[in-house]
Amino acid sequence: MEPIFSEIKQWLIEAGEIIKQTQRKTISVREKSNRKDIVTNLDQKIQRFLIEKIQTFDSKAKILAEEDGQNNLDDLTGRVFIIDPIDGTLNFVREGENFCIMVAVYEEGKGSAGFIYDVMKAELYWGGPSVGVYQNETKLLAPENISLQDGLLGINGYFYGHNCYNIRTIGDISLGIRITGCAGLEMIAMLKGSHVGYISKLCPWDYGAGCILLDVFNMRYSDFSGKKLQFSGREYFLAGTPNAYEEMQRLLQF
Amino acid sequence: MEPIFSEIKQWLIEAGEIIKQTQRKTISVREKSNRKDIVTNLDQKIQRFLIEKIQTFDSKAKILAEEDGQNNLDDLTGRVFIIDPIDGTLNFVREGENFCIMVAVYEEGKGSAGFIYDVMKAELYWGGPSVGVYQNETKLLAPENISLQDGLLGINGYFYGHNCYNIRTIGDISLGIRITGCAGLEMIAMLKGSHVGYISKLCPWDYGAGCILLDVFNMRYSDFSGKKLQFSGREYFLAGTPNAYEEMQRLLQF
Repeated sequence: MEPIFSEIKQWLIEAGEIIKQTQRKTISVREKSNRKDIVTNLDQKIQRFLIEKIQTFDSKAKILAEEDGQNNLDDLTGRVFIIDPIDGTLNFVREGENFCIMVAVYEEGKGSAGFIYDVMKAELYWGGPSVGVYQNETKLLAPENISLQDGLLGINGYFYGHNCYNIRTIGDISLGIRITGCAGLEMIAMLKGSHVGYISKLCPWDYGAGCILLDVFNMRYSDFSGKKLQFSGREYFLAGTPNAYEEMQRLLQF
Repeated sequence: MEPIFSEIKQWLIEAGEIIKQTQRKTISVREKSNRKDIVTNLDQKIQRFLIEKIQTFDSKAKILAEEDGQNNLDDLTGRVFIIDPIDGTLNFVREGENFCIMVAVYEEGKGSAGFIYDVMKAELYWGGPSVGVYQNETKLLAPENISLQDGLLGINGYFYGHNCYNIRTIGDISLGIRITGCAGLEMIAMLKGSHVGYISKLCPWDYGAGCILLDVFNMRYSDFSGKKLQFSGREYFLAGTPNAYEEMQRLLQF
């Protein structure tokens, strides 16, 4: 196995320790675009920690990251690290759990290594086309190709509640909708076969790692119209088992 | 501490072991009222296990339980055990996690002991008016009395999606909605201060244990109109911190 996998796994474990050792009362919260879009000093600290690790590991690599003006790249040429220091910041602040650290590595636009770390459950999902998908040290099998009506569906609450793009109809066809507030957890749920799909609006750091792992299992993802994701700004995001993805893509009114 | 607490905790640990030792492929699923309302052979096995324990412990106690014709009682006189062998059966079947075992003890209509066991996380929440509320062996403090707009809200997806009783409006006022598909997990989230409230339609075995623990922390709960729960059939259910409960009760259009 290439050394990059064990290297990045180690960064994530260390980053998780920093989070777990931080007293919740010392965390300061700042609103970004609105009261539901927040950042904490710890998001920023973890991002700086990961960027330092990346730059020591590969000083030429490009970095796309959620916070502090690292959030745009002209293209994915060369080696690009995409990082989300704390995915699910609202959960982190309010629940103290149900958040992830995510790192993705793309080489000339192709995903080579993805990492999603559910810190409080101590579950690290990682892998890539050369190695498969692992939960900690256990190799996972591809989930069954179940259809929308037979699975639980992760969904953006607003889209469901306001029936944007016919998404309420899609949700009601599924066996049940779930709202976790964390893209990383939704990716994990698809990889484990717990959820049949996921509909949301996401940034590259929300989907970069997950898509590499979904690819290994031949699961499908795209924007709502079926086009490739752009890795630029917030995009509509649809993913699922091949059966569920196709059904949802057909039902989306976009 | 009264022996009934350690006794029931032991039953739950044993019941959890039965679940964990059961191979998922041996579980058979049967639909009850519709495809989202299911029961498995394991729900029935755990219910029988708990009923046997109760009858050995107190042969005169009455039992109210989700499955197999135990689901109705004329009144709550005497000692009543209310049990939900697997709360969140859809999650149990599809996710293999995010389900609970719940037991409540009422004496002459007053809750004396409540137990919510998140089996896969190995977290047992238990307590009552005489002892307080514990997570495993750690005593919990009452959550802050935050307002609706400052907290995450657990919600019934259908009510939110279809704006029944103005619930979509209420959800949109909160910091974010969460849908877990498990009443026990929602009760736990309120007890920990992770969620500010919960809106759903529940049966006595869904709320019996949780309400005893909410009471200890002076959190509020009732049906949508503010009336006491009836412990009979499915009822509209509203709970939360005092501030959030009052605001939601005022906003519900019922």
